[in-house]
Amino acid sequence: MKKHISFEEIQKMEKQKRVHFINSLGGFKSVSLLGTINNEGQTNLGIFSSIFHIGANPALIALLFRPSPPERDTLRNIMETGFYTINHINENIYQQAHQTSARYNPDISEFNATGLQAVYKNNFKAPFVAESNVQFGVEFKERIDIAINNTIMIIGEIKEVYVPENCLNEDGFIDLEKANTITCSGLDSYHKTVQLDRLSYAKPDKELTSLL
Amino acid sequence: MKKHISFEEIQKMEKQKRVHFINSLGGFKSVSLLGTINNEGQTNLGIFSSIFHIGANPALIALLFRPSPPERDTLRNIMETGFYTINHINENIYQQAHQTSARYNPDISEFNATGLQAVYKNNFKAPFVAESNVQFGVEFKERIDIAINNTIMIIGEIKEVYVPENCLNEDGFIDLEKANTITCSGLDSYHKTVQLDRLSYAKPDKELTSLL
Repeated sequence: MKKHISFEEIQKMEKQKRVHFINSLGGFKSVSLLGTINNEGQTNLGIFSSIFHIGANPALIALLFRPSPPERDTLRNIMETGFYTINHINENIYQQAHQTSARYNPDISEFNATGLQAVYKNNFKAPFVAESNVQFGVEFKERIDIAINNTIMIIGEIKEVYVPENCLNEDGFIDLEKANTITCSGLDSYHKTVQLDRLSYAKPDKELTSLL
Repeated sequence: MKKHISFEEIQKMEKQKRVHFINSLGGFKSVSLLGTINNEGQTNLGIFSSIFHIGANPALIALLFRPSPPERDTLRNIMETGFYTINHINENIYQQAHQTSARYNPDISEFNATGLQAVYKNNFKAPFVAESNVQFGVEFKERIDIAINNTIMIIGEIKEVYVPENCLNEDGFIDLEKANTITCSGLDSYHKTVQLDRLSYAKPDKELTSLL
């Protein structure tokens, strides 16, 4: 049996309940650690579930910022240096990753607070997370202010990618499940995955086939 | 061992390989069926993996459109009527859902082509997918053109929600795994999930606890 929740009922929900509810509705999300450093050398690490693909040519990725404190250091550092890293979360580090969402003072690095290790590679200006299996460095390109609810969309170009060799398929597909990348739902639920199938490119009047 | 792929190597990739690669990098994505109808009563159903939460108050959800044919009918219908539905995909319907991405002529409804059933509820102007367990109706609010790569972001307000009663937790969290909602990666890979944990709200110097 399905329960019907109307617009009016959503409006009347207690604030935190509505946050859980609406956050869940969007479905499973990518969840990653965003690494930055400011011009004084202070590093920052934050967990984000609002990172999404917006185009492959040029290779662009977007993320959304809400006006809440833990995210402010990350946004400030991105605007200051122009560079950041995105690091997939796996089963071994999701508790530490979740802990980065605590409101630490700006002079405390979430790397130190959680025990995750910052690593610098190929002169890229922002720190990667050593324990992450899929990592990439991004350069800031554009900021779009979304007036309707005061969120900020940051678009960046993908510059450097690090992927486990055995997870990179011939056709370009990255086997995220093999890389132990996890997904999340709502504000605080973490999930590993079980692949059902990869399906062929769909055409009218043609039977789909498995690519596995 | 990690493989390093530089910006130059991404640029030089064969086009379809780059599409697979960059689409995978963003991590696991929500994947849903978007139902619309035009003013002549012609229905349309399309699969989208670019739907994301942008705020709970007001309850807003965004989706991205690339300038490709199968998505055009959906965008046209949204702009024409102002209403659309988002329907989570589960293990029983992911092949049919994937098939909606084939480039059918505008006068063919993907509901008929795939055998998924259109259902109308509570006078909402767009069709829901009967086989979907988590469904919601959305009203168009704002269109943002992203110039950097010619994508279009559509923001809508969540109006009517249908969720299995036994999947709605006290605190507002929707148990998507219990609802059999699946996730996707890349262009064509579908995955069910296995919950690792729900974690408590993080605070500095406080141990995380399980909410399960």
